[in-house]
Amino acid sequence: MGKKRVMVPAKDLDLSTVKYEHEVIKAPHLTGSMLKLFVRMVEAPVLGSLIMSFLKKQNKMVEMLQNTVIPEAPMFKPEFPPQDAEPSVVIVDEERKPEDRVELALKCLPHYDPASCWSGDSLPSFRYWKIRDYAYAYRSKLVTPSMVAEKIISIIEDCNYHKPPTPLLISFDAEDIRKQAAASTQRFEEGNPLSILDGIFMAIKDDIDCYPHPSKGATTWMHEVRSVEKDAVCVSRLRSCGVILVGKVNMHELGMGTTGNNPNYGTTRNPHALERYTGGSSSGPAAIVASGLCSAALGTDGGGSVRIPSSLCGVVGLKTTYGRTSMEGSICDAGTVEIIGPIASTVEDVILVYAAILGSSPEDRISLRPPPPCFPDLSSLENANTLGSLRLGKYTEWFNDVHSTDISDVCEDVLKLLSKSHGCETIEIVIPELHEMRTAHVVSIGSETQCSLNPDCEDGKGVKLTYDTRISMALFRSFTASDYVAAQCLRRRIMHHHMEIFKKVDVIVTPTTGMTAPKIPSSALKDGETDMQVTAYLMRFIIAGWL
Amino acid sequence: MGKKRVMVPAKDLDLSTVKYEHEVIKAPHLTGSMLKLFVRMVEAPVLGSLIMSFLKKQNKMVEMLQNTVIPEAPMFKPEFPPQDAEPSVVIVDEERKPEDRVELALKCLPHYDPASCWSGDSLPSFRYWKIRDYAYAYRSKLVTPSMVAEKIISIIEDCNYHKPPTPLLISFDAEDIRKQAAASTQRFEEGNPLSILDGIFMAIKDDIDCYPHPSKGATTWMHEVRSVEKDAVCVSRLRSCGVILVGKVNMHELGMGTTGNNPNYGTTRNPHALERYTGGSSSGPAAIVASGLCSAALGTDGGGSVRIPSSLCGVVGLKTTYGRTSMEGSICDAGTVEIIGPIASTVEDVILVYAAILGSSPEDRISLRPPPPCFPDLSSLENANTLGSLRLGKYTEWFNDVHSTDISDVCEDVLKLLSKSHGCETIEIVIPELHEMRTAHVVSIGSETQCSLNPDCEDGKGVKLTYDTRISMALFRSFTASDYVAAQCLRRRIMHHHMEIFKKVDVIVTPTTGMTAPKIPSSALKDGETDMQVTAYLMRFIIAGWL
Repeated sequence: MGKKRVMVPAKDLDLSTVKYEHEVIKAPHLTGSMLKLFVRMVEAPVLGSLIMSFLKKQNKMVEMLQNTVIPEAPMFKPEFPPQDAEPSVVIVDEERKPEDRVELALKCLPHYDPASCWSGDSLPSFRYWKIRDYAYAYRSKLVTPSMVAEKIISIIEDCNYHKPPTPLLISFDAEDIRKQAAASTQRFEEGNPLSILDGIFMAIKDDIDCYPHPSKGATTWMHEVRSVEKDAVCVSRLRSCGVILVGKVNMHELGMGTTGNNPNYGTTRNPHALERYTGGSSSGPAAIVASGLCSAALGTDGGGSVRIPSSLCGVVGLKTTYGRTSMEGSICDAGTVEIIGPIASTVEDVILVYAAILGSSPEDRISLRPPPPCFPDLSSLENANTLGSLRLGKYTEWFNDVHSTDISDVCEDVLKLLSKSHGCETIEIVIPELHEMRTAHVVSIGSETQCSLNPDCEDGKGVKLTYDTRISMALFRSFTASDYVAAQCLRRRIMHHHMEIFKKVDVIVTPTTGMTAPKIPSSALKDGETDMQVTAYLMRFIIAGWL
Repeated sequence: MGKKRVMVPAKDLDLSTVKYEHEVIKAPHLTGSMLKLFVRMVEAPVLGSLIMSFLKKQNKMVEMLQNTVIPEAPMFKPEFPPQDAEPSVVIVDEERKPEDRVELALKCLPHYDPASCWSGDSLPSFRYWKIRDYAYAYRSKLVTPSMVAEKIISIIEDCNYHKPPTPLLISFDAEDIRKQAAASTQRFEEGNPLSILDGIFMAIKDDIDCYPHPSKGATTWMHEVRSVEKDAVCVSRLRSCGVILVGKVNMHELGMGTTGNNPNYGTTRNPHALERYTGGSSSGPAAIVASGLCSAALGTDGGGSVRIPSSLCGVVGLKTTYGRTSMEGSICDAGTVEIIGPIASTVEDVILVYAAILGSSPEDRISLRPPPPCFPDLSSLENANTLGSLRLGKYTEWFNDVHSTDISDVCEDVLKLLSKSHGCETIEIVIPELHEMRTAHVVSIGSETQCSLNPDCEDGKGVKLTYDTRISMALFRSFTASDYVAAQCLRRRIMHHHMEIFKKVDVIVTPTTGMTAPKIPSSALKDGETDMQVTAYLMRFIIAGWL
């Protein structure tokens, strides 16, 4: 009784009254037999609901979703009015062929002379080959895609004997790679490569269809109930550009975790420190790029799943605007937050891959009307200098709320550099209702995931999931329809707050994660773990899929 | 185990395999002490969930929402691609002033000479005065709005002494009516009426704000937690046309029922048969129009709430396309099915009122982009004859699935008349998944209602609701977030099916209800009743708010 709370309308919120609140997560860290016991408890009919109710109350979810009058109407997908194009960008028609879009993106990149890397006698012992390096090497007949394929195949096959094992790929077929590479090699011999991406090796996260591989979402059974007949739309776009697809890379089971822990196929190791997590859920995509084996990979991101592992593995990941890429042919094709995004070793390569895969779905063109996509025009120095006109928004208390000041210090240095070299101005901003945003996010993505998995879970597959997935599912099951609708009302507020912020600044700058790559507890390798404290640090700066 | 069901994609559904299934509702009919006992049971913590689980299983809701793989992505609002304008319509700019739109609509109506009714010595004992009758009478100085106001006030005040009581109005202020009428009378004296609607008496359903009246949604407490500061958008549009608002009319509590039963303020009686229900939830709006007291009224409709009482009271109600009218200032302003729609004694008057109130909200213009509204041009005989080109779609098995063949026979006669007089062709159609549609509908509207009422219910107001509302709320509380998302996947299928049907026909014809006005059980007057069988008959032909 007497618990009712009333929010002021978002448009009337006085930002000067907003206080930053450090996120306090109340949930146990469990591995091994305690983890298994906890799963039994949360899956028990009455006890389970009681535990979930308790955890949701402890974390203020009940207060936020059930006891609060939220004056906004629900916003079920991230909608915003049409935006003006930014300065110094090149608009691209999403109806154009992927090859043409890649060509256009290439013209927007800063000048780069790959030949310079090949001059001199000795090549550096290790460096990330850019897509333009491969393109140059193929076109100069220094190497062929088939030669690269053999190298990659032998390294991947060697991986099986590594100690500790570094399970990058869930599905891999050497002959399929050789075939693709041979076709690409032939195109180069004939002088007809399909695009700058021809002969570029890429890997696909296991929740995106890549024919003829199965899509398991890193479960043990998804391929038994969901067959793959063709490539996902994004993957087919890559293929039409000549990309060579090396197979399906590992991930946190069903994308439901931020570390990349996976007892089913083994936990992918961070290439920079094998005792540490890659981050997740796109653990394999980030690791295979960070290891230098593939130029790029596709991941999916609904709550940091591209951004977190890219950050922890020191590569570049792009969470696109919602609806910018078609989700057709991915396991998470029915949600309102997830996107498919590229991971690569450089921003430039991310742009090239993004150019290939972009293009919204027919459904989203009705309801979201995404504005035409565009690339920054970095081809001339004057255009590149428009960087200086960008106003960077920084919410300092949030920016500094990290596990170690190493992170915020490094990020601060970047801002100083941007200011010094380009004259970027940093403007202090306040982002209200971050905690509400996190709650709305987990309810949205959780409920949508639960809905798509329900028929199989009811059919007995639920117990074949890993323990931490089962805990997540128990939480998701406990969300009511009314919680879901309330979360969408919060979504409208959050969109409003961000639209207001973007009137004042062009970019919101934050660290990507609040923590560097955590060590893998040895007790978590066999059966996984649940550690919401780590999750909270890893997701600290994830502005969900609202934007 | 082994319960999983897989739907074929909607676009691949073979209509020739669709079998019409009569709806079988399994739920008890309860009044009096049994009703009260049942409410206690469904509100009990564990027992309540068990009962709801049982009822949902019995009615195949669990099977449909949890065990079925629905291949479509969720559609959260009724979205459809832009449509071509129909022939012989006049497009209206929704940015124009309501008075101008009403003027345009007036020009579209067939010729009518109100003077003819006043010629001759004796007026008929009772007939519905059309808006154009009042307009003529005011302009010819046969009567003034103030004179009409006194008549209406005296009848309404008399109502209090009727046996049985016929509670039409929940909030009524004679002085406020006199003031509005005097202002209108003065405008006529000065020769400056605001529109054809000036001096027209209308009533507003108690869930739509009409200042200075409170909005109670026919509860006993809503006005204590939700104050009314101004008119709802639709009401303010009426006022700017000169409409005189007589007050807030009765309804089924919070719109959650189809009979109009209301123990809080008394159950509005059907003016044509006082022992019978009006239908609901817009019981008061339909009854006040059917009684001849008001020319028109505004109701809300999310599941038949305008259509059912209009039908049972023998008047005309319009459920507009979703998003066509702004819901701002109504109690149900955050749903994805409800609309505000007019009730009047003739189609022509409905068009005039609709012209005044239409205009989508800024939010819906982003996501739904409603096509520009239009009126049928009936002003010339040739245009009116385009009626003959309409293809009427009839699903015969559904059409005939009524409580008494009286209904289907009368409706069949109408079709014959349309064919004979205008040459309209009737085409047999099949509407698949009607049961899925009903399930998706109740989950959508129920969850959205639950969400908006939650903070007050948690705050102790829930027990002050009527018993049948409490049973509905117990059902709504039992819907999971995943149920809600699954219902939205069904919505996309249903929209697809209807888009396909509307390629073949222009109109779907059905009876409005499967039952004529049911008798009011005397045992249901004090504490209400729950009778899902009656509800099912009344809602039989309600194609939810998808379209």
